[in-house]
Amino acid sequence: MSKAIHGGNIEELSRIYNIDKSKLLDFSANINPLGISSKVKESLIEAIKEAKVYPDIKYHNLKSVISEFEDVSLENIALGNGAAESIFNLVRAVKPRKVLIPAPTFSEYEEAVLSIGGEVKYYFLKEDNDFNIKEDILDYINKDIDIVFICNPNNPTGKLTGKDIIVRILEKAKINNAFVVIDESFLDFIKDYNEYSVKEFLSKYNNLVIIKSLTKIFAIPGIRIGYTLTKNKDLLEEINKVTSPWNINIFAEKATIAALNEKEYISKTVEYIEEEKDYLYSKLKSFEGLKVFKPSVNYIMFKALVDIDLKGELLKKNIVVRSCSSYIGLDKSYYRIAVRTREENERIINGLNCILSIH
Amino acid sequence: MSKAIHGGNIEELSRIYNIDKSKLLDFSANINPLGISSKVKESLIEAIKEAKVYPDIKYHNLKSVISEFEDVSLENIALGNGAAESIFNLVRAVKPRKVLIPAPTFSEYEEAVLSIGGEVKYYFLKEDNDFNIKEDILDYINKDIDIVFICNPNNPTGKLTGKDIIVRILEKAKINNAFVVIDESFLDFIKDYNEYSVKEFLSKYNNLVIIKSLTKIFAIPGIRIGYTLTKNKDLLEEINKVTSPWNINIFAEKATIAALNEKEYISKTVEYIEEEKDYLYSKLKSFEGLKVFKPSVNYIMFKALVDIDLKGELLKKNIVVRSCSSYIGLDKSYYRIAVRTREENERIINGLNCILSIH
Repeated sequence: MSKAIHGGNIEELSRIYNIDKSKLLDFSANINPLGISSKVKESLIEAIKEAKVYPDIKYHNLKSVISEFEDVSLENIALGNGAAESIFNLVRAVKPRKVLIPAPTFSEYEEAVLSIGGEVKYYFLKEDNDFNIKEDILDYINKDIDIVFICNPNNPTGKLTGKDIIVRILEKAKINNAFVVIDESFLDFIKDYNEYSVKEFLSKYNNLVIIKSLTKIFAIPGIRIGYTLTKNKDLLEEINKVTSPWNINIFAEKATIAALNEKEYISKTVEYIEEEKDYLYSKLKSFEGLKVFKPSVNYIMFKALVDIDLKGELLKKNIVVRSCSSYIGLDKSYYRIAVRTREENERIINGLNCILSIH
Repeated sequence: MSKAIHGGNIEELSRIYNIDKSKLLDFSANINPLGISSKVKESLIEAIKEAKVYPDIKYHNLKSVISEFEDVSLENIALGNGAAESIFNLVRAVKPRKVLIPAPTFSEYEEAVLSIGGEVKYYFLKEDNDFNIKEDILDYINKDIDIVFICNPNNPTGKLTGKDIIVRILEKAKINNAFVVIDESFLDFIKDYNEYSVKEFLSKYNNLVIIKSLTKIFAIPGIRIGYTLTKNKDLLEEINKVTSPWNINIFAEKATIAALNEKEYISKTVEYIEEEKDYLYSKLKSFEGLKVFKPSVNYIMFKALVDIDLKGELLKKNIVVRSCSSYIGLDKSYYRIAVRTREENERIINGLNCILSIH
């Protein structure tokens, strides 16, 4: 119920524009194009039988499966009703007076901080630097900052931040008693996961917090499941205190357990995305009217170099894209689209072709 | 993930005592014994198809159905991932320094207040007064109190508080700038709903907040859905601000819409509970070793007059009851059981008969 604008709100779009939502092709939400796996679907049918009982208030089985999947102890996991709630609960627990957030990035870090009356300082990513986080971010970390948020890869730019910079951020934050929150929600989509995930640093840095969403990679955004990983026991205790009981419903519980047991689904996804991302990127790049930013995962940001409302024009063709006008640090000339199936990707390319060729 | 003890944690019980949970007969959770309706089950099957899309971030359809069901405008409704989240979000929005809570009562009011660092003052309900709220509660409402919580009927005692007293509480609270939160989660179970619901006062009292759960009446505790009703626009805006986005998942959304459209399910439930509650109450009363408190809805509190661990003894017979030892203002001699089907009610009566006859 946040005021922020998000992708994936096709229900609202279809209501406002009076379009049959089943006809809309949604590139605005970054969901795994392979769709929900049959194992997960089966688990959801099974879950119907269990809707009549409360979920396990301690979520023992669910946490055990996540613990195994992440190779992180059970007691170092806090569950969220989607990564959005994980972010809110973290902020409720830390109660930061001031945080550092790169801009542009996912809006929920800011929403969460504002919801508790905290203040936001921006580290503006520069288009000249290809929107990459540079070492000068360290200059922004001082005694006033209580949390540094890094979305890796960043949303909507798709830019990855290397471990070397993250370690320097962690060190500078440590000296300044600040937490560093790395949102790795889209990292499962990439082949070189281990090259970028900072999970290995959890033991070394007590100020490190990793947040993950499972709804993107398992194509279950309607279900809501996210989690927080940290070795900081005091922080986990505070998160536990601010979390309302039974926050994960039985469908999210069962679907997650089924999903995390299906190892080959992720590897299949990574392969598929690798290929389709490259295809879509190369096709987008061929448009003279667009500046396309190199993607790393299942979404691509581009900028219209011509003055044209691409979102509105594509919507006329029943194609929904994410305008980046609401992102701090971007404007209405930027757009983000998800990588979908080949057939669907061809549809948006054809759509863009029609629109851009007549302008 | 609160530290409070709750009913319905059969998953945990079966883990701790190594009992097959399908064998446990759970009287510890107060769930509609009629079970999930076929319409709700169908909606859950339908929801599986929609798990791949985000829920409508504004929950327009869901709120419309609740609006019609409650006869309260759409903009006066805030949704919670269960009533527990509704309580937490209300407390996050009001940020009370001190609240007044009757004792014993549902533990989540206190948990929520402690989670934001607030203080709790208790109004102790007296067994001599049959645990009823009396006029002397007014003496406890002063400038220091920011919220007064009333669970109506109260959990675990089952005692109803009349409109006359609630109006006096509202008036006294109004003078003292305090909110009055009436938790009507179990009120749909009673025939004379209109005699007790204070919904009619929402327009008159800007400091009135009603919280409801739908998981009990529709037998869907695994699904999580609750809501807050108030005419106070500033409060709703604050609640909106502290609520994480997409807090209701697609299964809760679809199930609620289906459930609220099934009017005859509630009337059937009310009739069924009326009869079974009277049956169970009369049978319990026949035991010399128990003092039974007159119930109003689908659960009954009683006190063991003999020194015996009824919870442990019943568990040996695979029957789970709620010990009230964790309730402030009660001790381990008090128990709460749900009203279930006739056959199940007979099983607990037989169980108690075996246990109490040899003591």
